[in-house]
Formats: sequence, C-alpha cells, structure tokens
Amino acid sequence: MRIYDIILKKRYGEELTDEEIEFFVSSASNGEIEDYQITALLMAICFNGMTKRETATLTLAMARSGDMVDLSAIDGYTVDKHSTGGVGDKTTLIVAPIVASLGGKVAKMSGRGLGHTGGTVDKLESIEGFRTTLSGEDFLNQVNKIGLSVIGQSGDLAPADKKLYALRNDTATVDSIPLIASSIMSKKLAAGSKGIVLDVKTGSGAFMKSVEESEALAKAMVEIGKSAGRDMVAVISNMDIPLGNAVGNSLEVIEAVETLKGNGSADLTAVCIELAANMLTLVTGKDKETCTEMAKGAIADGSALEKLGQMVAEQGGNPDWIYDTSLFPKAEFEYEIKSETDGYIEHMDAEKIGVASLLLGAGRNTKADEIDFAAGIILKAKTGDKVAKGDTVATLYTNNKTKFSAAVDKFNEAVKYSQTPVEKQPLIYSVIK
Amino acid sequence: MRIYDIILKKRYGEELTDEEIEFFVSSASNGEIEDYQITALLMAICFNGMTKRETATLTLAMARSGDMVDLSAIDGYTVDKHSTGGVGDKTTLIVAPIVASLGGKVAKMSGRGLGHTGGTVDKLESIEGFRTTLSGEDFLNQVNKIGLSVIGQSGDLAPADKKLYALRNDTATVDSIPLIASSIMSKKLAAGSKGIVLDVKTGSGAFMKSVEESEALAKAMVEIGKSAGRDMVAVISNMDIPLGNAVGNSLEVIEAVETLKGNGSADLTAVCIELAANMLTLVTGKDKETCTEMAKGAIADGSALEKLGQMVAEQGGNPDWIYDTSLFPKAEFEYEIKSETDGYIEHMDAEKIGVASLLLGAGRNTKADEIDFAAGIILKAKTGDKVAKGDTVATLYTNNKTKFSAAVDKFNEAVKYSQTPVEKQPLIYSVIK
Repeated sequence: MRIYDIILKKRYGEELTDEEIEFFVSSASNGEIEDYQITALLMAICFNGMTKRETATLTLAMARSGDMVDLSAIDGYTVDKHSTGGVGDKTTLIVAPIVASLGGKVAKMSGRGLGHTGGTVDKLESIEGFRTTLSGEDFLNQVNKIGLSVIGQSGDLAPADKKLYALRNDTATVDSIPLIASSIMSKKLAAGSKGIVLDVKTGSGAFMKSVEESEALAKAMVEIGKSAGRDMVAVISNMDIPLGNAVGNSLEVIEAVETLKGNGSADLTAVCIELAANMLTLVTGKDKETCTEMAKGAIADGSALEKLGQMVAEQGGNPDWIYDTSLFPKAEFEYEIKSETDGYIEHMDAEKIGVASLLLGAGRNTKADEIDFAAGIILKAKTGDKVAKGDTVATLYTNNKTKFSAAVDKFNEAVKYSQTPVEKQPLIYSVIK
Repeated sequence: MRIYDIILKKRYGEELTDEEIEFFVSSASNGEIEDYQITALLMAICFNGMTKRETATLTLAMARSGDMVDLSAIDGYTVDKHSTGGVGDKTTLIVAPIVASLGGKVAKMSGRGLGHTGGTVDKLESIEGFRTTLSGEDFLNQVNKIGLSVIGQSGDLAPADKKLYALRNDTATVDSIPLIASSIMSKKLAAGSKGIVLDVKTGSGAFMKSVEESEALAKAMVEIGKSAGRDMVAVISNMDIPLGNAVGNSLEVIEAVETLKGNGSADLTAVCIELAANMLTLVTGKDKETCTEMAKGAIADGSALEKLGQMVAEQGGNPDWIYDTSLFPKAEFEYEIKSETDGYIEHMDAEKIGVASLLLGAGRNTKADEIDFAAGIILKAKTGDKVAKGDTVATLYTNNKTKFSAAVDKFNEAVKYSQTPVEKQPLIYSVIK
C-alpha cells in the first residue's frame, strides 16, 4: 500500500477503504510517511470530504493509536460530556455534579484553555490545592466512591489525532467536518465512557459559526459514536454571546457555584439543565421531561453543590471555597465599561470577549503562558438588554494594570449598540440523537 | 505575511496576490515554510486552480529562484524547443540541426531520461566522446560559431521548481495545469531563449492523455511565455503511439540521422518538419508555408545533417558515426516479437513500450542507474498497420539477455490486435500561438 495512491484516490473523490485509512493513521503515527504527504491528504479531504464509514474508520484508528482508557472497574453507567469550546463555558462544573448527584458516573478528562477559549482544568486549578492530575487507580476509585472526578488528560490519548491536529493547525485544514468530528470523537472514544453528550456550540464565539454547520458536525459525531457502540446525544447551543456572565477562571467557578445554588443566570442555567437532562436520559433510561425535573431538583435540594464540594475535597482542594466563594482571591484592579448611549445591545461578539479576557491574563497565547486566575470579565448586560448611557456594561479584572488598555479596546470592538429593540436568540437550537 | 493565510485563501478559492505568490516561492526555496505547508497549498491549487496572472507570477518567481541564463552574447535570434516528454521522441536531434542550418540560434539545455521517457542528453552520449557538459563560455561560443549546441542542464535553473516538483511527485499533485505549466515554463524562461516552441504531446505515451487537456496546458504555457516577453508557439502532437520506429538511445540517434538523410518514417518526419517550421517562423518572421519548405530543403540538401555532424565534432564526438551509423555498437542479443494473428494493430500503448525499452536497459528507474546505450526496440509495425500471422512486429535489443523476459511481456501487453481495419490517428492536432 502506498500513501501516494491513497492521496490520489481522495483527490479524485474516490472512497478510501478501511485498510487504506488504517494504513494512513498508523504510518502517520509512526513516521513512515512524510508530514507533507499527510497534509496533502488532509487538504484533499477538506475538498472531497469523507463518507460516514470513512469518518468512523478514521476516528477509531486515531482512538486506537494510543491508550484506550478502561473504565470497566467503575460500577454503574459512565457518562461523558464534551463541549466544542466556547467563551465563558463553565457547564462542566455545573452539569457533572448534577449528573453525579443523580447516580451517573462521571469520569471526565478535561482540557486546558488555549487562545480565546477557556479550559475546565484551568478553572478548577483556581481552587487552592485542587489537583487535576490523579493516578488511574485514584481516578477510578474516586468515581466509584462519589460518582465524579474531573482531571486533566492523562496518558497518551489519540496521539495520531494530536499529530494530525498540529499539522492541520499549520495548514488551514482545521475546518472540515469529518476532520473535526474524528478529532473530537477519537479522544472521546479513547476516554472510555459508555454515554457521551456533545454540546456543539454555534455562533460568533464558537468554531462553527452557523447552525447548519453545527448540526452537520453534531450528526457526524453522533454517527461515529454510535458506530463505535456508544450511546450518543448532541445538543446544539448558542455561543453567539458568552454563556452566563463570567469569563475567566475563578470568576467562572464562582458563577458555577452560584448556579448550583439556584442563583445562576437564566441562559446558563437553562443550557446546564438541558445538558444534564440529556446525560440523565442515557444514565437512567427515563424520558427527557423526568430527567429535566431530576436535574432541577438536584439544584433545588443542594445535592449537586454538595457533589462539587465532595469532588473538590477528594482532589485536594479546600471545599470551604465552594460554600464561601468570597475566599477566592480578588483581582487587584478593575475597570468598568460604560455604555456610551441609550439603547440596546445589538451584538456581543463572544470570541472577541474571549480575547479581551485572554488579554487581561485569564488565558494563554502559548502553552507556556501562566494564568492570572482572578483575571477576567463580568458582563452586566448581554445581547438584547436595554442600557442607558453611563450604565455599566461589564467589569474587567486583572492583577496587571498595564493589561487594561488592549483589553478595553478589544471589549469595545466586541459590542454593538442599537437604537431599536433586539430580538433574543434561542439558547438551544436542536437535539440530535 | 503568513503562509497559513495564503493556504486558507487558496482553499476558499480566492485569488492570490503577486506578493503572496512571491512570498510562497521565496520562503519555500529558503526553507522558511514547512514542506507540509507547501504541499497543502499545492493540493488546494489542484482543486481551485490559478488564474493566468497567478500562474505567470508563480512561473516567473520560480524562474528567478535560481540562475537566469544570459544568452545576450549570442548574435542572432535564439530559439528553444521543449517537448512535454514522450516515447521514442528524438525530435530535438532532428529539429535543432534543421533550424540551426537555416540561421536560428539553438542554445539548448536538455534533460536525461527517467522512467519510461528518454532524454536527449542520454541519446547524445551514445555517440563516442560526445560531451554534454560545456562551460557557459564554450556553450555561447559554439552557438555563435555553428548556431547549435545541446548540453545537459547546467547551473541551478529554477531550484524552487525542483523542490516543488519533488514534493508534487510524492503527493499526487503533479497533474494540475497551472502547476505543470509553471514548472515547465520556469525552466524555459530561465534557459533564456527569445523564441520557444512547445511540443505538447497527447495520448497514451504522454502525460496528458486527452487533446483537450493538452490544449489547455499548451494555452497556459503560451500565455505565460508571452507575459514574460517571449515569442511562443505550441504544437499539439500525437503520442498515443511512439514517434518513429526506434526507442532506445543509439537506436534513436541512428533514426534521427536517417531522418535527416530523408529516409525517416513519415510520422517522425512530419512532426519534425512541423516543429522546425514553427521555430523558423519565429526566427525569420516568414510565413509557415515558406518555413515548411525551408525545413524540407535543409533535409533535402544535406545541410541539416551536416549541422548535426558539426555539433558532434564541436562537442568532442566522432562525426564519422553520424555519416556511417554502422559504427554505433550493436546490442549483443535481439529478440523478435511476431504477430500471433492475421489482422491489424488496433493499439500500441506508447507508455508501455517505453517501459519495455526501460526493462531492456535503455533507461533508468532511478537517477543512479546506468544505461545500456544499444538497448531498445525497433518497431516494424505500428497502430493501423496490417500484419499477417508470424510477421515481425518489433525487434528488442539488449546486452543483458536476462532482461528479455519482462520486456517481452510488457511489450505484448502494449499491443492490441483487431480483425478489422483501424482508422489512422492525426499526427498534429493543433497549433496554438
């Protein structure tokens, strides 16, 4: 088998066999083919796509290129959640405790933030002492004990995807549905859970800017998961505006806690209930309405918040911080953005707000950057809200005063005002099973 | 300027600016961008093409990436000929002496053979003592003295093309008209002649299998040359069957000599007259008919043959071999292919015959292979010819008897017989200016 022939086939729109795709992934992993051949094939895939079968085969081959996490020691139904990335997306911190408090087993590996999107692992590390690295045994034991653990990605999950992703990132071949779907799902399949709920973001703060693209991506991922024997649901949710009001690490943990106490913003609460309910349908086999009520109940009776406190304690963090969020260190400096007009917020570009937060110190431009956990943004008004001239639209936080200038400019770029009322956007577009 | 953005633009079908194309070529040449980025862009070009302006800019940038041969020391009109490669294509050995004998200045750099196509330089080296490496000064002096020199490629012509071509060859991105056209023309522009006649082959033995593709390629090359201030003509000629009867190095030199004596096969003679006449229209400014008669005259009066003899003598070869071709060493072994049926030759696959000749020792699989100059094939019948059972269709020659088995099999694969008469194919499809 020659990679040349495989590239040629894909270039001319022919379907690749399973053997050809497996040869590609294995020889890309072990360096038997050249990077410049890999990228030529990836570009041809961007143009000619992949069938469902080809995409599923690519995903499984990438999943099997490294460690396949074995969760069989966990007693119960393991369920995972994956978000395609967004700004102010703290849903894992809310959804995972809800589901775990209702009997789901959430053994979750999360990522770090890069660029304008945050990462759950960074957010958790803003809690003093919280360890995001556990041994495999401790991880499984903790999930058996309390139903929940969130750690950083450990082991060598889908190294073929890592290699391909790095090459795609340098060659403008990222935005291809089969390539995105196989990249995400290879890691999810390797992470081992039986049920997987995908939160596919759509809009200005998301990778997929249109609902149609997001639904196509969601369908591709659901099909891959099913063909690998997993239970799948995908929720298409709005990321045209940031989710909730907080962007930044400790600011988002605090907002998550408030949401688990029942004081969350309506949009964030609704998306979390939707995700948790879908996960619970997989865990319990009950209908969606029942699961929705269960999820709401876990907030109302405090059991979800308690579950988050348990996880923090188990992983070395101080659970007091969860019950009293005033213990989180505050940023030394703050800056209020005021509305310069009477009117309505017509649009708030989530990606630019993510960048503004990054500029304040809340994120990383490169993997080596250090994070200012207290830095970030609290939105006081969002798309569709009425504002008067001089009203505070947002407060920016940082421990490095010199960072305000660029962040304020970027924030102002992100916000557009209108003199006429603005239609509210839907929060959830669709659910794909 | 970032290569990422250039790849993205081309991927989405946008036109690249001259600056972007020049940045690509210069940074590809000096290693500032990665090979895997180069191939991603090349694949995107295969899908989205290039405009005339983009193709011309790419070509000039590649030409200027290395030495630009300066032929200004040559007194008179310099004219070059390029064939897109074929089997049994000895036209340079015939056309260049005709044109030089009529006042054209032919300062020609030729290639070596690789794979199933032969190279003029190898053919000339089958003449004892013939040197295909001359200093730049000797090359120019010889052209001023006798109007003709054919040497191997010297200096560093279009190194950017060399790099891109090697990558294309490994990534199934060879057959793209803007990429082929710019690759060929970058070397021709760097080689310095004022007038360029392209012999674009079409059919089974050529790179372009259809007349339409060949014409599109020819048009692209003519436009590039004109935009760089050169005088251009392209001839689309048949390479569905090998040109003439001989395939192999000394066998082709002998056939070229016979053609210059007026004893050539009709097809080879006609193509050579066509090419020479087109070159002469550029050199003399006279009409095509007049130039055709001039070319025929140079064969009839022996002046073209004498010119070839002069070149051989000037470049250290023994000109006696030109006047008495029995001086060329013969192959030790020969094998006759007989027709197994009464009928007609329906098809003779030129590429497979090229491979059969290669298998006999006449060519190279890799650059390091040594050539058996006497090895090759003499066709006794060609497509359309009537044959009786037992008639000799071809004679195969080699100095290594063990090579017959594979070569005979390949030759037999190349030939199809029919019981009904076969329509003759045109030799020249069109001329593009």
